Amino acid sequence: MNLPSGFKFSGVSCGIKASGKKDIALITSDVPAVAAGVYTQNVVRAASIDWNRQITPTDHLSAIIVNSGNANACTGEEGFRNNQKMAFETANAIDCTSGQVCIMSTGVIGQQLPMDLVAKGIKRAGNELGSGDSDFDSACEAILTTDKGTKTAFRSFEFEGETVRLAGMAKGAGMIGPNMATMLGIVVTDASLTPPVAQDILKRVADKSFNCISVEGHTSTNDSLVLMANGQSPAPMKHWKALHAFTDSLTELCVELATQIPADGEGASHLISIKVSGAENDADADTVARSVAMSNLVKTAVAGADPNWGRITSAAGLTSVRFEPDELCLSINGSSIFEKGQPVAFDEQKLSQSMAENFEAKVEIRIGSGAGEAMHWTSDLNEAYVKFNSLYTT
Amino acid sequence: MNLPSGFKFSGVSCGIKASGKKDIALITSDVPAVAAGVYTQNVVRAASIDWNRQITPTDHLSAIIVNSGNANACTGEEGFRNNQKMAFETANAIDCTSGQVCIMSTGVIGQQLPMDLVAKGIKRAGNELGSGDSDFDSACEAILTTDKGTKTAFRSFEFEGETVRLAGMAKGAGMIGPNMATMLGIVVTDASLTPPVAQDILKRVADKSFNCISVEGHTSTNDSLVLMANGQSPAPMKHWKALHAFTDSLTELCVELATQIPADGEGASHLISIKVSGAENDADADTVARSVAMSNLVKTAVAGADPNWGRITSAAGLTSVRFEPDELCLSINGSSIFEKGQPVAFDEQKLSQSMAENFEAKVEIRIGSGAGEAMHWTSDLNEAYVKFNSLYTT
Repeated sequence: MNLPSGFKFSGVSCGIKASGKKDIALITSDVPAVAAGVYTQNVVRAASIDWNRQITPTDHLSAIIVNSGNANACTGEEGFRNNQKMAFETANAIDCTSGQVCIMSTGVIGQQLPMDLVAKGIKRAGNELGSGDSDFDSACEAILTTDKGTKTAFRSFEFEGETVRLAGMAKGAGMIGPNMATMLGIVVTDASLTPPVAQDILKRVADKSFNCISVEGHTSTNDSLVLMANGQSPAPMKHWKALHAFTDSLTELCVELATQIPADGEGASHLISIKVSGAENDADADTVARSVAMSNLVKTAVAGADPNWGRITSAAGLTSVRFEPDELCLSINGSSIFEKGQPVAFDEQKLSQSMAENFEAKVEIRIGSGAGEAMHWTSDLNEAYVKFNSLYTT
Repeated sequence: MNLPSGFKFSGVSCGIKASGKKDIALITSDVPAVAAGVYTQNVVRAASIDWNRQITPTDHLSAIIVNSGNANACTGEEGFRNNQKMAFETANAIDCTSGQVCIMSTGVIGQQLPMDLVAKGIKRAGNELGSGDSDFDSACEAILTTDKGTKTAFRSFEFEGETVRLAGMAKGAGMIGPNMATMLGIVVTDASLTPPVAQDILKRVADKSFNCISVEGHTSTNDSLVLMANGQSPAPMKHWKALHAFTDSLTELCVELATQIPADGEGASHLISIKVSGAENDADADTVARSVAMSNLVKTAVAGADPNWGRITSAAGLTSVRFEPDELCLSINGSSIFEKGQPVAFDEQKLSQSMAENFEAKVEIRIGSGAGEAMHWTSDLNEAYVKFNSLYTT
């Protein structure tokens, strides 16, 4: 696994989940660490989001405590106090102050946390901390809700003979929990960074990874991505080349983590990747890619292995981004099906077969000759998804 | 039916549709009429859209010619010329100039119109014009594609002892055609208006009716709404009271027409109406209502008769509109289920039954104490929809 130096992990079951599955994860750094965070923009947000926003960026984070099974959102004043209590219990368990603890919660909303169980769980998580691969795995497991399995990614690079390591875990699988899907991401690294640099890099990386995925387009009450950098690698990180290498590694890691989420969408039979190029700037390309990714017509077409250029070009055209329709080009899985504003002849049967056989459907759209480009990833929309989401009752 | 004075209608079959169903509709005014139009904002648009944009607003429109079965979109230079030819043939058939003809096309995209058939059809439509109810019905039928039935609405009002009449027809039923759903609306009235007043009223009414419905959020290549006002009613329309009465009647008529579209969404089992109030202004309320209407999570919950406050509040919160989460209130079908930022106790079984039994699900959201409010209508999302849209192949 090649975990970064100086971190410990644990995952325990405290009884929030009726299933008895692990529901408390604790991640600590042996020394106070630099930390950065990006959080949901949803107005309706959990107590933990406001808490973390006050803490990051920082240069002395000691722990991230996560509970799964209950999001502690829409829980009012009592939920606010319970959130504070989680930080307090964690600080007690590992001997730091509560201001050195980030908090993540995920699960049902509108219900109060069973704080007796949570407090005991946090204590046990503190006792079971370890730096081995199985400890990391336990933590990865304990943050899950309805995910099919753990989501992890690792990277490392060398700079001036020294190794920098990054390890990430995530949870999220589309709307399959009781109310909505929370996306959580945690990345730990032994790189040596300053808080403003860490925050700047994390924000830029999130905009190219976690902010470019969607299952149904809901940012939840609890979405969080936190980076902890404890400086335990001796690699000198002040050089811009080192920061570039770090940013590249973090981007790769976050894209790998993030794309596991739509791939795990309940009943998803395809991951759809959408690349838009030729825009005037990256922001325009992102707007167009997002519109295509949000389209139920595109998502159902991919589920049916239908190379439906009409739905894709229509979705591309309906944003505020202006382009010349006569320059619009489109390919799926490498086959060109629409050029200069008009459909072109292609082997429909072969392309449909390629879409049916490959889990990833690669949609590439060119809207002009500009340098702007963007990627977006989403899941397809099939009957299983709708069945689950319409039959599920809170 | 109480049709407005001075209009004629016809609907014929010219062979664009393999089924042999009617596919050419002609609507004419006995005298040159004032006309206004609002059209799709999609960058990828049909030749007819550019044509109509040049013609309306005007004070001398003689006819609207509509073909169904072929949208004449993504058809390049040849499509552009065919569109011109439709205007020319119509002008010949009813003895006016081609600049006095609005054109609407709806159906498959990326294929050329069979112009020999279309030209003959237009000629026949010209010969069969009549002012009876059955003539109006024929035209309503001829603009349909995959709609389950015709969509019509009528209104009239009196001013200073004189009657003003309005009659409307529409088509559109969500994504069930080969590529996307075109929404067409035509309203004829014998009111006496000037072109700028007609255009201003139509734009404002469209923003409260046709622009507040969605099935899957695609504005198509061909969406059009045209108003023809021929002034054959002697009611004096310069008085602001008369203009108010006209605007109210047109709004009611257009809401009635527009909401028939999501109600006819392929396989739709519910019409969802979303009312947002308490916003700082109407635009904010509209943004929030639109976000809820676009949410697959909300749409599947309604299909499953699930009063899922979590999905609705989350969808309400994810736009750029800021509000105090602690002021958020929500009711479905008149039952309050979420107040001041937290769920409240309610009879879940009774509400779920009410949602299952009623075709319309009424969602009311209050986000604060401002005066801004908005309505939006959409269809639910169920397995039948997805089945149809993923199995359909171009």
